[in-house]
Amino acid sequence: MKSEFVRILLKSGFSKSKADQCAEIFALNSLEGVYSHGVNRFPRFVSNIKEGYILPEAVPSLVKNTGSVEQWDGNLGPGPLNALFATDRAMDIASENGIGLVAMGNTNHWMRGGTYGWHAAGKGFIFIGWTNTEANMPAWGAKDFRIGNNPLVMAVPYKNEAVVLDFAMSQYSYGKMELFDLEGKRLPYPGGFNKNGEITDSPGEILATRRALPIGYWKGSGLSILLDILAAVLSGGLSTVEISAKKAEYALSQVFIAISLEKLSNFQTIQETIDRIIMDLKDSVPDENSNEIRYPGENTVKIREENKRNGIPVNKDLWEKILLL
Amino acid sequence: MKSEFVRILLKSGFSKSKADQCAEIFALNSLEGVYSHGVNRFPRFVSNIKEGYILPEAVPSLVKNTGSVEQWDGNLGPGPLNALFATDRAMDIASENGIGLVAMGNTNHWMRGGTYGWHAAGKGFIFIGWTNTEANMPAWGAKDFRIGNNPLVMAVPYKNEAVVLDFAMSQYSYGKMELFDLEGKRLPYPGGFNKNGEITDSPGEILATRRALPIGYWKGSGLSILLDILAAVLSGGLSTVEISAKKAEYALSQVFIAISLEKLSNFQTIQETIDRIIMDLKDSVPDENSNEIRYPGENTVKIREENKRNGIPVNKDLWEKILLL
Repeated sequence: MKSEFVRILLKSGFSKSKADQCAEIFALNSLEGVYSHGVNRFPRFVSNIKEGYILPEAVPSLVKNTGSVEQWDGNLGPGPLNALFATDRAMDIASENGIGLVAMGNTNHWMRGGTYGWHAAGKGFIFIGWTNTEANMPAWGAKDFRIGNNPLVMAVPYKNEAVVLDFAMSQYSYGKMELFDLEGKRLPYPGGFNKNGEITDSPGEILATRRALPIGYWKGSGLSILLDILAAVLSGGLSTVEISAKKAEYALSQVFIAISLEKLSNFQTIQETIDRIIMDLKDSVPDENSNEIRYPGENTVKIREENKRNGIPVNKDLWEKILLL
Repeated sequence: MKSEFVRILLKSGFSKSKADQCAEIFALNSLEGVYSHGVNRFPRFVSNIKEGYILPEAVPSLVKNTGSVEQWDGNLGPGPLNALFATDRAMDIASENGIGLVAMGNTNHWMRGGTYGWHAAGKGFIFIGWTNTEANMPAWGAKDFRIGNNPLVMAVPYKNEAVVLDFAMSQYSYGKMELFDLEGKRLPYPGGFNKNGEITDSPGEILATRRALPIGYWKGSGLSILLDILAAVLSGGLSTVEISAKKAEYALSQVFIAISLEKLSNFQTIQETIDRIIMDLKDSVPDENSNEIRYPGENTVKIREENKRNGIPVNKDLWEKILLL
């Protein structure tokens, strides 16, 4: 998979090293089960390059340094490479000062946010990061798209792996709801509004109103608004309203915070603290539907192992399309 | 209200200056409409002092300084005073380095988290902070309490006021559900599980199962877990599982992050960015129930003005009880 991605990226204007790094991220996202932001999204990534929204060889440039906070311009470079750069830079600052914040405007879709959480946690750092997006959800109390689903990532090293939370502010993505609708299934839990303004678990009714539910109703709507404000203010880049005025989703604003654990406490003590929390969760009395209580990121490890054993499942038509790129 | 609080705190072992500061916070929380963590909670605060969970004159002590990150021990001092101290300290660090993170273990309930967001934003800082709590909600997929509702606060200066988001990870508090139940009303939206494991908007059925819903189902459960891990790891203090093993909710872990805006951009530019976002939200097409789309914190300003005009509404019996303290 990676070598096919490299081949296509080289044809699309990437240098060898950038093609390698970018292909690695798309392949890893697929290996770890986030196909929607791995292999499935790769053709769109390539079209976005052709359309000029993503500039393959652009690299970030420093706008302002205020100590442990830095503002960078992503110069419309590839989102995953820019995000990896920003994460590394935040870790560098954190290694010196305990915490580093890199805010980057004018960058592109980072694909799976969790990628950068896993990356930073793998090097012993706490990671908190988020991105804004184009408007794809109504604010609480509204009917039309004004807020983004603005994914938020939090990660912390855990043994040889990590605890990684990576979630969007919409309860379900439109992609997920379309899948349920195609299969004639109801959503497991309500995910939006029907035409009478009632919440519903019918994906078809939600797709008709385009009124997806923010997580926690008014709470997720508020969180989406704050994440957008902070991303735009910190980076000096565009906010959801400005991104949405463009003809495609590009020039996003993102925030990357790394915190050094090394200086704070010894690694063993920290792992015992996390282990105590996770063991307690595992001791929960399971509800009617579940056999096991999982911590955020646990499933990623399981899927990664499965896919390493059995290969990465890919839709045949999609893969044939990719081979032709 | 404040002078009654001061009188009682002086009787409870507070020095004049600490009584003043603490009474001010309880009165302000009430003035701004968060009665549950203002006047309504004051009698419990006083009992917690009598029971020895809160030490009126204890002050925080520095445990470790790693540059822009500091670890403090709250020494079981009054939660609101410790939290105000930590917020101020985070702002001091941020004034030097752009960002400051203060993690405090062994502290107490901070009452309304928004207080510290308004405080920091009022001085021109972005604020991100959270606290852990005792277990008061099942993790996703579970039936028994293992996770806290761990309130999270984000704030940014906006004109002469601020945009402040302050929310717990449970969809509704038990207090709120009890109120709806007493009044024989259904919740506006589903808030927990009934005895058949189905989500419901019946407060009585949720109170019976004690299975309150985390915001966004599995997402809020995950966020609660990460906030607890980060608070415990960063502060070196207790996690939800350890707090829950105590006979009362004390010795909490909290995180306070301040980011200086002054060094990042000029204030006018930042306000224009926020204003563009808020004006766009206000332009939303309202749904069936709403006349107006509000931004987080907008209602606080409105209630503050109303209460300044008309006085703070207080339950008569509660106030008589307070007068007798």
